[in-house]
Amino acid sequence: MRELYTYEKSRELFARAQKIIPSGIYGHQGPAEGCYMPVEAFPFYSERALGSRFWDVDGNEFLDYMCGYGPNVLGYNDPDVNAAADAQRAKSDCVTAPSPVMVDFADLLVDTVASADWAFFAKNGNDVTTLAVLTARAHTRRKKIVFFRGYYHGVSPWTQKIDYPGILPEEVANNVCLPWNDFQAIEDLFAREGDEVAAVIAQPYMHGNFADNELPAEGFWAHVRALCDKHGAVLIVDDVRAGFRLDLAGSDHYYGFRADLICFCKALANGYNVSALCGRRELMNTVSGISFTGSYWMSAVPFAAGIACIEKMKRLDLCALLRARGEALKTGLIAAGKKYGFDLHVSGELALPYLRIADDPTLSLHQEWIAECVRRGIFFTNHHNHFLNASLTEEDIRQTIDVADEAFAAVRARREA
Amino acid sequence: MRELYTYEKSRELFARAQKIIPSGIYGHQGPAEGCYMPVEAFPFYSERALGSRFWDVDGNEFLDYMCGYGPNVLGYNDPDVNAAADAQRAKSDCVTAPSPVMVDFADLLVDTVASADWAFFAKNGNDVTTLAVLTARAHTRRKKIVFFRGYYHGVSPWTQKIDYPGILPEEVANNVCLPWNDFQAIEDLFAREGDEVAAVIAQPYMHGNFADNELPAEGFWAHVRALCDKHGAVLIVDDVRAGFRLDLAGSDHYYGFRADLICFCKALANGYNVSALCGRRELMNTVSGISFTGSYWMSAVPFAAGIACIEKMKRLDLCALLRARGEALKTGLIAAGKKYGFDLHVSGELALPYLRIADDPTLSLHQEWIAECVRRGIFFTNHHNHFLNASLTEEDIRQTIDVADEAFAAVRARREA
Repeated sequence: MRELYTYEKSRELFARAQKIIPSGIYGHQGPAEGCYMPVEAFPFYSERALGSRFWDVDGNEFLDYMCGYGPNVLGYNDPDVNAAADAQRAKSDCVTAPSPVMVDFADLLVDTVASADWAFFAKNGNDVTTLAVLTARAHTRRKKIVFFRGYYHGVSPWTQKIDYPGILPEEVANNVCLPWNDFQAIEDLFAREGDEVAAVIAQPYMHGNFADNELPAEGFWAHVRALCDKHGAVLIVDDVRAGFRLDLAGSDHYYGFRADLICFCKALANGYNVSALCGRRELMNTVSGISFTGSYWMSAVPFAAGIACIEKMKRLDLCALLRARGEALKTGLIAAGKKYGFDLHVSGELALPYLRIADDPTLSLHQEWIAECVRRGIFFTNHHNHFLNASLTEEDIRQTIDVADEAFAAVRARREA
Repeated sequence: MRELYTYEKSRELFARAQKIIPSGIYGHQGPAEGCYMPVEAFPFYSERALGSRFWDVDGNEFLDYMCGYGPNVLGYNDPDVNAAADAQRAKSDCVTAPSPVMVDFADLLVDTVASADWAFFAKNGNDVTTLAVLTARAHTRRKKIVFFRGYYHGVSPWTQKIDYPGILPEEVANNVCLPWNDFQAIEDLFAREGDEVAAVIAQPYMHGNFADNELPAEGFWAHVRALCDKHGAVLIVDDVRAGFRLDLAGSDHYYGFRADLICFCKALANGYNVSALCGRRELMNTVSGISFTGSYWMSAVPFAAGIACIEKMKRLDLCALLRARGEALKTGLIAAGKKYGFDLHVSGELALPYLRIADDPTLSLHQEWIAECVRRGIFFTNHHNHFLNASLTEEDIRQTIDVADEAFAAVRARREA
């Protein structure tokens, strides 16, 4: 049996951090929000990272299935991406006049992404989802935005919930939220108020938290696309989370339709800080007219990293690789669960698996199993999809399944004790 | 006489970029918005940068007084900041669990910035001005935000103008805009609707575009501070542009008052991509409750760069250095103008001088002079404040004044021809 990890130094550092950083660690990487309970199983701070692994401040090694919540797509500290970044940095990074590498990166995205006639770069996924919504409203001169239940499109007021702290009702008054995969609901909405809808914004499939992830039903995207076309609404795909892990040409291409605007971030540059809005030629002038910029948006190093990342994803045939690893992981985890009488559901796309033990309405059994995995060096989280990366080996997957097996055994033993 | 620069390669690249990037270069670095007319004098793309200079794609060398619109505070490609960034990157950057360097950076900001009891990190200045406004609204449960005419606080809908493309009237319906330095106007506003004001947000002095920059009138900040205290409104200082160039303890400290929340970005890490919201202990719990995060916000490399940048700014006594260089620049430029009968006004703080030739209502004379400077290798812009950096030498200032002199001569000669 493996010895279970402990986190003394993480806890000490967290105690120090809580005095000078809101929540100690805020947002989706915070122990409360990122992992949900039970936090005692999770490390809080990492010391170093390489390939598919990171080491926490207590020296514990983790096979990491969160990948920094997505950015780590090739493996941490990828040498090819770093080399490109270094070469650019020796020349320039954040300068008064941007580098030609910005144009090269836009060129590469236009060549790579099916729905990209152009590219606009920023820093956060949230920057480009916001630009997309501004563009749709400017283009249509309409107000309403259609969301799907379970959505996450960043943290700007327009995309938050009416009861969230600091949000004004008027900031979200034009949001309409529909159930995912409900053909009739969106048809009814457009029939009723189609001439007021500026945009539909959606992830390529529903990869929300605390719920099995749901792929688009057969024909759903074609239905949404046709309704947007009929009513002159802009179709925005938020590919921040899934982008490049399903299809290097964009997740809309993967599902056989074309977005009007598509938002990228996480996997775009293997962790170097850049996001992108791409879209149809017809919308380019409207984007040009939006007042939208930021201090670091022309930084050249992340552009060079992004080029190297996309080229390497192509060389590796990344999406096929992640599907193969994801299939092996899914099969192995389900089999390990079954051995001990647990029915593990693995939902969503194979490159971004969402895990849930069935027949566990309080989710406590699932959290217990996740905690047993984490304390044995497999970094899963409780109620968020996971992310695979290209540096995961078959041996890594085998190790993961071994640990999962041991974790299921521990949970079962406790149930029978 | 110097040979005037030409920009063939910049133009070719721009023509290519316009097909695949909105506006070719968007936002404040775009030729139209960043420099305003006459764009034919300006380079569009830079190849490399070092210290106080960059070289454009045509090989022209520029002494750069825009500093990437602020981030370049120590000099481009600063070796000390790069060394710290490299050492961190060898360990980790954007990882599932953040690095202890985040806590170290927060510690340093709390030690350095007078109004900082804590620090929250993000990517854009806009991220932290938005978080400040959300915090103020959540804390006060009020809606109204007081701005000062000429303000710029980023690009989120809440801070845009009602007639800007894509902005809804309801998103800016709670904004109140007052004249800067008007004691009575803000007193009247608070008397009338003080119990509805969530926050006053302001730059430490008015450094807007297309207008002489205005320092706070004697007693103005004390007046604003007292009104906020009396009415329970949150005082937000947007120090994104001026931060660390006036006072390493914050521009509020420089002007002798204390902000409740203060926003930093540009000069925080010498171009590495990070921003910070700092503030009073009493607001920390409210910040913890806001839904606010981003994919790259825990990236460790910019934190390490930020620590090295702040430490070096302290070692150099940056603010005194920039004031000295700014004083020499101002004196020299004014004298050069006078020589040819031009009355150059240099306004704002010395580290961020705003230039304008007086008695030039159409601004065309000023633009002509700026163009003559730029085409001789001094990168000024027309109607935006400039930025000094620590790598500027006395010799650089002399070279600048020599060129300015020649440029004034050229403008005068054309007037007399």
